[in-house]
Amino acid sequence: MIVELADIEAAAERISQVAIRTPLLRSPDLDEMLGGQVLLKPECLQLTGSFKIRGAYNLMSQLSDAEAASGVVAWSSGNHAQGVAAAGGLLGIKTAIVMPQDAPQAKIQNTQRLGGETILYDRYTGDREVIARELAAERHSALVPSYDHIDIIAGQGTVGLEIMQQSAEMGLVPDQVLISCGGGGLSSGSAVAIKSLSSDAIIHTVEPVEFDDTIRSLTSGQRQTNPPEARSICDALLSPSPGKLPFEIMLELMGEGLAVTDDEVRDAMRFGFANLKLVIEPGGAAALAALLAGKVETRNRVTVVVISGGNVDARMFAEIQRAQYSG
Amino acid sequence: MIVELADIEAAAERISQVAIRTPLLRSPDLDEMLGGQVLLKPECLQLTGSFKIRGAYNLMSQLSDAEAASGVVAWSSGNHAQGVAAAGGLLGIKTAIVMPQDAPQAKIQNTQRLGGETILYDRYTGDREVIARELAAERHSALVPSYDHIDIIAGQGTVGLEIMQQSAEMGLVPDQVLISCGGGGLSSGSAVAIKSLSSDAIIHTVEPVEFDDTIRSLTSGQRQTNPPEARSICDALLSPSPGKLPFEIMLELMGEGLAVTDDEVRDAMRFGFANLKLVIEPGGAAALAALLAGKVETRNRVTVVVISGGNVDARMFAEIQRAQYSG
Repeated sequence: MIVELADIEAAAERISQVAIRTPLLRSPDLDEMLGGQVLLKPECLQLTGSFKIRGAYNLMSQLSDAEAASGVVAWSSGNHAQGVAAAGGLLGIKTAIVMPQDAPQAKIQNTQRLGGETILYDRYTGDREVIARELAAERHSALVPSYDHIDIIAGQGTVGLEIMQQSAEMGLVPDQVLISCGGGGLSSGSAVAIKSLSSDAIIHTVEPVEFDDTIRSLTSGQRQTNPPEARSICDALLSPSPGKLPFEIMLELMGEGLAVTDDEVRDAMRFGFANLKLVIEPGGAAALAALLAGKVETRNRVTVVVISGGNVDARMFAEIQRAQYSG
Repeated sequence: MIVELADIEAAAERISQVAIRTPLLRSPDLDEMLGGQVLLKPECLQLTGSFKIRGAYNLMSQLSDAEAASGVVAWSSGNHAQGVAAAGGLLGIKTAIVMPQDAPQAKIQNTQRLGGETILYDRYTGDREVIARELAAERHSALVPSYDHIDIIAGQGTVGLEIMQQSAEMGLVPDQVLISCGGGGLSSGSAVAIKSLSSDAIIHTVEPVEFDDTIRSLTSGQRQTNPPEARSICDALLSPSPGKLPFEIMLELMGEGLAVTDDEVRDAMRFGFANLKLVIEPGGAAALAALLAGKVETRNRVTVVVISGGNVDARMFAEIQRAQYSG
């Protein structure tokens, strides 16, 4: 495998002084509702509000002094941007991030607050990768890809490693793990850690229905893309196809891919507010949405759900919650 | 002392299979802002959305079979109501709770959903204690007070015990602990645990400015009450005076009492949403508000902040967040 458990353990060591070891939360409410044991890994509580600092710091902390001195360039819908900017701040590396102009304001502002230079583009007409590569060439900067790099995959995989460690501390072994999936860095890295430590666990990727490239790719065995007219409120999960390296891993390790509608995601965000007291962004709620919508059998099983991020604008959050009180 | 560390350890054992051992969260953002080490104890993530299940279960699990068979009666602004109802559900004890009619809808509805019978009264004209005592006499039911009982104090004190255990696991010793205060069950019980394990730690109660009965009581050495015209958005912290038993403990163990304005509380709730990704109710945000408003020196100190609850209606939450995006 291109990423091994040892790579993830090394990443865990690198990020240990920086990233938060987010808790693995029990939810007796969910246990009762679903007739099984549910554990939640809330990466919304992570530094920068999503898991992305894990991979960004793992990659950037391994740059040579010369590379670090030239700064880095990244492209991101928002969470990777904040992870890269925060890692840059911690490591003293200048960061420039190409972001879609319709990214949540909170994500753009936080990236800037963390010291990142932001370059905005049109998500539906521009090509962020081309813009970022040109900028990197101009500045002789290293690129920090958002998922297609083994150090990124290993860093995000520390989520899966912690899930296995923390469930073991509770005397539990996960039967299934639900993980939101954009380019597949988080899900592939976590799958390596989880399947290395418990080969019977089944990992389900969760995507928005209109961005089900991973489901189709896993079925066909070839990386598939999403149609240009696809839309979803899950701004963190809109990547065009599974990453090349993540997909190599996914083909070997993943169970059935799942898809959720935007309405199922909204329901999950409302459940997060009312029952879990967590602020969850749309993309971060995808795996919880799949759980609540009954996409997997939970009875008498230990199900782990990764809540991958919480960076949502107050206005959108309020609009989604409003359906609770004004119909 | 009327409650000792051993009582709290026994309570911790009783509730261990039921309550969530909420994490003690680091917040690198807060550390940097405040120049010290900040640890957050988010009891909004607790079963029923506040710490109250701890005390309620500790008391109710010790009732005799005869007492349990007659059901219990409680009065509560909402969080204790849910704790009592949930404990009743877990222990098979019928529960009736006297609640103010202007309590947050979420608190009333959740109490009912958890199986509690709710009896509503007018907070500013009725006397909830009289109503509850009459009902209890009629039904031969035991009362479950919200703070004035040693089993309640010991149960809530498990928050303080966990703070000491979890900070020790991180290699830290709290210099100061900020705890929201209504009747004083949480703060007095936690103070017993904390001061028993680290006598140098300073415990600060935090109250709404118009409900500063604890500050005045600690200063005068006598329990003081709040004027009837006092108002605050912190619905969980509107008790008329410190409880008799909590105050005995508080007089011996508490540092200076702190007070926060409703606007400081709103700011803390916005910080919780944007930076911590936690849903915090007004009363639950009081200690965080004191921290953010600079009411204590944090530089080079280890400061623990208890976030005591997260049961807030979606409408109010949205209105408070709105100030962020529409001025």
